[in-house]
Amino acid sequence: MVWFESLQHFISEADQVLIVSHVNPDGDAVSSTLAAGYLLKRWGKQVTMVNESPVPKKFFILEGTKEIVSTDQISGRFRHVIALDCADRERMGNIRQLLAEDAFIINIDHHATNERFGDVNIVVPDAAATVEILFDWVEQAGVSLDQRLASYLYTGLLTDTGGFRYSNTTPKVLRIAAQLVDTGIESHKIADAVLETVTIEQLQLLQKALSSLRRSDDGLVAWMSLSRKDTDAFLQSHEDLDGIVNYARNILGVDVGILFRETEDGTVKVSLRSREFVDVGKVAKAFGGGGHARAAGCTFHGSLKEAEEKMLPRLRLELECEKR
Amino acid sequence: MVWFESLQHFISEADQVLIVSHVNPDGDAVSSTLAAGYLLKRWGKQVTMVNESPVPKKFFILEGTKEIVSTDQISGRFRHVIALDCADRERMGNIRQLLAEDAFIINIDHHATNERFGDVNIVVPDAAATVEILFDWVEQAGVSLDQRLASYLYTGLLTDTGGFRYSNTTPKVLRIAAQLVDTGIESHKIADAVLETVTIEQLQLLQKALSSLRRSDDGLVAWMSLSRKDTDAFLQSHEDLDGIVNYARNILGVDVGILFRETEDGTVKVSLRSREFVDVGKVAKAFGGGGHARAAGCTFHGSLKEAEEKMLPRLRLELECEKR
Ligand SMILES: [Mn+2]
Ligand SMILES: [Mn+2]
Repeated sequence: MVWFESLQHFISEADQVLIVSHVNPDGDAVSSTLAAGYLLKRWGKQVTMVNESPVPKKFFILEGTKEIVSTDQISGRFRHVIALDCADRERMGNIRQLLAEDAFIINIDHHATNERFGDVNIVVPDAAATVEILFDWVEQAGVSLDQRLASYLYTGLLTDTGGFRYSNTTPKVLRIAAQLVDTGIESHKIADAVLETVTIEQLQLLQKALSSLRRSDDGLVAWMSLSRKDTDAFLQSHEDLDGIVNYARNILGVDVGILFRETEDGTVKVSLRSREFVDVGKVAKAFGGGGHARAAGCTFHGSLKEAEEKMLPRLRLELECEKR
Repeated sequence: MVWFESLQHFISEADQVLIVSHVNPDGDAVSSTLAAGYLLKRWGKQVTMVNESPVPKKFFILEGTKEIVSTDQISGRFRHVIALDCADRERMGNIRQLLAEDAFIINIDHHATNERFGDVNIVVPDAAATVEILFDWVEQAGVSLDQRLASYLYTGLLTDTGGFRYSNTTPKVLRIAAQLVDTGIESHKIADAVLETVTIEQLQLLQKALSSLRRSDDGLVAWMSLSRKDTDAFLQSHEDLDGIVNYARNILGVDVGILFRETEDGTVKVSLRSREFVDVGKVAKAFGGGGHARAAGCTFHGSLKEAEEKMLPRLRLELECEKR
């Protein structure tokens, strides 16, 4: 692999390395940070792992998460930087004051939209997760897999493939997973912690959302809404909303699932998910939002009711046109 | 593998084969039936696939599910029978009138508790699913994997490992999964259909259960209840209850999750799940029920309130004793 040499060269030059992933880190961001940090430390480097946002509690099952510090906890300027799972420079968050003027950035990522903002860019859109690229690195470098490294890599694969459920679950992903479990890690405990565990606030929000669940007469659209009262009472972090909209999409026979959520600033945020027929990215775009065919979002000014009255007829039209 | 030859011998002798799995079939039962049926048909055998219970709709994504008939749709008596995923004879359901007097039963299963009721017993407790044993058979027999066969085997692995989340997700399971996805099957569509899809009645029951959610002061026990009114309104099949109790168990910090459910006959059915500390099998047994350490159940006479008043102090005691 051609990128492997530039990576090894970077490592050989560096003494102190800053490792950063994206704000509001997901499993791949946290795991790739920890895995890269662990590797570099094994090679005798001084490592600083940083993230603008706190690490979500469910990842505390991974050793060393407490060593990932927030931007304001460190000082100094770094000349060697590894950016992980960041599609663009802004995703790294507020780290400007940590970069030396001649900072050299290695950008390792799997997003097809990656803007190649690094001095070296290792962008592999075929990889299911950034940790998959790190796994290839580990193999190329001839590093032996221990349980600690394996648990990091497994977590990133698990979360970025939705627990091996998304279409990026390639045979290669499953073979890597097998090699990682070969080390003896308790992969079921990782799955339990990062995929199954919920906070009570998440369940309370889910209950509120489900109590508002409605479905179109033909069963193709299902929607739920959360009022400000609901979110004021239960929403602690934006992660708490993760996955709620999927409950609507996952209903047998439904193509489009929607969550309408009233926010503090008088707007309604709309999350859209679809199974097969409706390109919800296109619909969201028509209302000034964005996303892709199966997952998208947009924002309306006004009340929940007004947002529903704009969105539902538009989806009806899409479905009518599809059925022609 | 020593069992392989007896299986091949059985096949060579048989012209007509009855294939049966267990009542209320899960993914492994349905998939192993379809996979065995497909294999035997490829070998020129006449195959009858039977199940006492209807195949749950979520498995209709698999080709040929409609060919699995109910016990009363067929007549005649079979001399060659393959029983799949059945730990004992009773699990096969009401098939007595389909068996010839000299019926020869091949019992293929992965439950450690299997009672070896067959004339040949291929019981592999290390296998995560019955389809894992069938995969080994396919390999031994030198049968080429096509997409149809792969989709069956994948489904059984997926459902019996809880989507590769349970502790039976061995490296071997993941390597087999990789080989199956190599055939080009759209494994994400299978995962969506069999693991993600819910009925609206399931969500309505979940909403009712969540609205009753309570948690002990120390956060170690969480419980929910469903009244007869709730189940009368929404419960269509027992599958609709699958997984509801896990929402309580999955709360961060909770060790024991409970679902109390009022039934038609004036009893309360209690489902128990635990993470780590409490052996809920022992607790259920103390009340005349059964199960194992992490998943168990029992039944009380009386009201929901009375059931809670019996169960909750008992769990409190277990936790106090654990903490000593
Ligand atoms: Mn990623
Ligand atoms: Mn099974």
